[in-house]
Amino acid sequence: MTTLYNGLQSLIWKDGKLDLLDQRLLPEEIVYLPLTTVQDVWEAIFHLKVRGAPAIGIAAAYGVVLGSHTASNLQEWQEAVIRDSAYLATSRPTAVNLFWALDRVKAAALRLAGQSITLEAAKEGLLQEAIAIQSEDEETNRLIGEYALSLFKDDMGVLTHCNAGGLATAKYGTALAPFYLAKEQGMSIRVFADETRPVLQGARLTAFELHQAGIDVTLICDNMAGMVMSKGWIDAVIVGTDRVAANGDVANKIGTYSVAVLAKAHGIPFYVACPLSTIDLETPTGAEIPIEERSAEEVTNGFGKRTAPEGVKVFNPAFDVTPNEYVTAIITEKGIIQAPFKENLAKLFHQ
Amino acid sequence: MTTLYNGLQSLIWKDGKLDLLDQRLLPEEIVYLPLTTVQDVWEAIFHLKVRGAPAIGIAAAYGVVLGSHTASNLQEWQEAVIRDSAYLATSRPTAVNLFWALDRVKAAALRLAGQSITLEAAKEGLLQEAIAIQSEDEETNRLIGEYALSLFKDDMGVLTHCNAGGLATAKYGTALAPFYLAKEQGMSIRVFADETRPVLQGARLTAFELHQAGIDVTLICDNMAGMVMSKGWIDAVIVGTDRVAANGDVANKIGTYSVAVLAKAHGIPFYVACPLSTIDLETPTGAEIPIEERSAEEVTNGFGKRTAPEGVKVFNPAFDVTPNEYVTAIITEKGIIQAPFKENLAKLFHQ
Repeated sequence: MTTLYNGLQSLIWKDGKLDLLDQRLLPEEIVYLPLTTVQDVWEAIFHLKVRGAPAIGIAAAYGVVLGSHTASNLQEWQEAVIRDSAYLATSRPTAVNLFWALDRVKAAALRLAGQSITLEAAKEGLLQEAIAIQSEDEETNRLIGEYALSLFKDDMGVLTHCNAGGLATAKYGTALAPFYLAKEQGMSIRVFADETRPVLQGARLTAFELHQAGIDVTLICDNMAGMVMSKGWIDAVIVGTDRVAANGDVANKIGTYSVAVLAKAHGIPFYVACPLSTIDLETPTGAEIPIEERSAEEVTNGFGKRTAPEGVKVFNPAFDVTPNEYVTAIITEKGIIQAPFKENLAKLFHQ
Repeated sequence: MTTLYNGLQSLIWKDGKLDLLDQRLLPEEIVYLPLTTVQDVWEAIFHLKVRGAPAIGIAAAYGVVLGSHTASNLQEWQEAVIRDSAYLATSRPTAVNLFWALDRVKAAALRLAGQSITLEAAKEGLLQEAIAIQSEDEETNRLIGEYALSLFKDDMGVLTHCNAGGLATAKYGTALAPFYLAKEQGMSIRVFADETRPVLQGARLTAFELHQAGIDVTLICDNMAGMVMSKGWIDAVIVGTDRVAANGDVANKIGTYSVAVLAKAHGIPFYVACPLSTIDLETPTGAEIPIEERSAEEVTNGFGKRTAPEGVKVFNPAFDVTPNEYVTAIITEKGIIQAPFKENLAKLFHQ
């Protein structure tokens, strides 16, 4: 699989800075932004230069490394880790990987600070934690891809929404990982990618990375999903997620809920692919997941051209929640979880 | 109602030419194109400068008038009517009003030619037929609006898809007519308009004309319809249609089927508003309605900027078919039709 995957890497740590692929410019321009401060990272997350729950978590971990790097003693360093974690947590509200990654670097800092080590060793230890978050994500996604692929057969049509691909993660992606693996194994899967308004992650990112890898992908507008299902072209749906609640409710990019309802109406299984770090047992149900609303301009003026009248009201939620009864299975690096989700998700964390 | 309606007119016959509002430029620019030949009209329909089933029919009727206008004797005039009708019928395949209007002007020409009249009188008679098609459409839409409004209550939320408004018709629209009437009567209806990718008729036209009329309208992306329904904000859906088959299957703008499935899943009534000229008893079911597919560029390059990778496969159907079991009622100028549609639609034409 490693040999096949020729996708762009969204995040590269190099020479003491984070080179971050500006995803807003894809597919037209491939530009890496050198991020050197915690403010740079906050901006990159807030303005969607980096997106995708796992990639946001990785970026935030490096953000804390950058923010605490200039500390001149251990006390100052530890305070910077706490302060910058709190700051980065305000960049986006929905993806739980952000908070998970920040908690993980904070815990690492506490551990390091307790070890009477030098300031330089502490800084290096924190960097190693961020690097570990990134490399573990890669391995996690490979495992998710293998489990997901066990649910697919040759010649199937599979629909996906938004981008839960290599660009949303360290590598491979979550929902897109099985497609890379299928390609490597010579299986033929026809992927249908919803363009995913308003920011078009499906058109700009999913269609881009799958097409680049030589995978059979057809781009459709979001409102064509029902028609394509009714034609019998879709055998399964697979999506990523920004947060899974303890009961299996799934927050993901706006439009995911509509796809899930359409899949159920057509008797098509609806799969959610995610690492354990996206499952939040602290959030009882989807009702408790904060849903980010973004600016009207994303809808009315998304592409450098005004496409709606001045002054019109706009509702622009960035995410929606798919209740667990629409979810056929959640595919993690530890296996495939089915209903009852509350019990089975809890078990995952106590294995 | 006439006093309130302050919308732009999509089609104005004036000084021997058809002034046609170029709907592709809305809402940013208001430009009327003076059409003087049948080729001009064919181009305008094909390139979506005019769209909306009733407006297409009206434009085509004037197109035949323009095409036959230069004939130098009655024989030549009659041949021009036949030839230009056949030509205009190739401009778009799905909207049945196009064929209905062409049949009507052909029948008028035949009637006129049988009346041993002068060439000038024949030309004038044909023009009067086109004018009648336009003015009858206005009256028809007023009646549709009244029937539709009888299904709505104060303070309801109503979702619509694409544009079946004043811009799609002679005046008032079909699906949007009740909103103009409600406003006049002091009723408060909250309209939600799907933006309707790829051509964004909902954002550019529906949001534009309702906002201009001071009607409470909120623009959403197509993929937000499910979420908005799940919030309980939508009490009814109303859409127009390009063709209703004899069994009540409804062809309309792509995405209508997804909205209908979502409405059913949320227990929300799904209404279709159209004149009798959109009901085609010659088409037994939706399976026999030809569905136009349009160019990939509408999806990949719709906003003046490329939003998908070069060379990616695209599926771009302009319409879909909603099976009759999803349709709560069809609202016509002769009343509200419910299931069984085959029997009840047939009765409409034999009253």
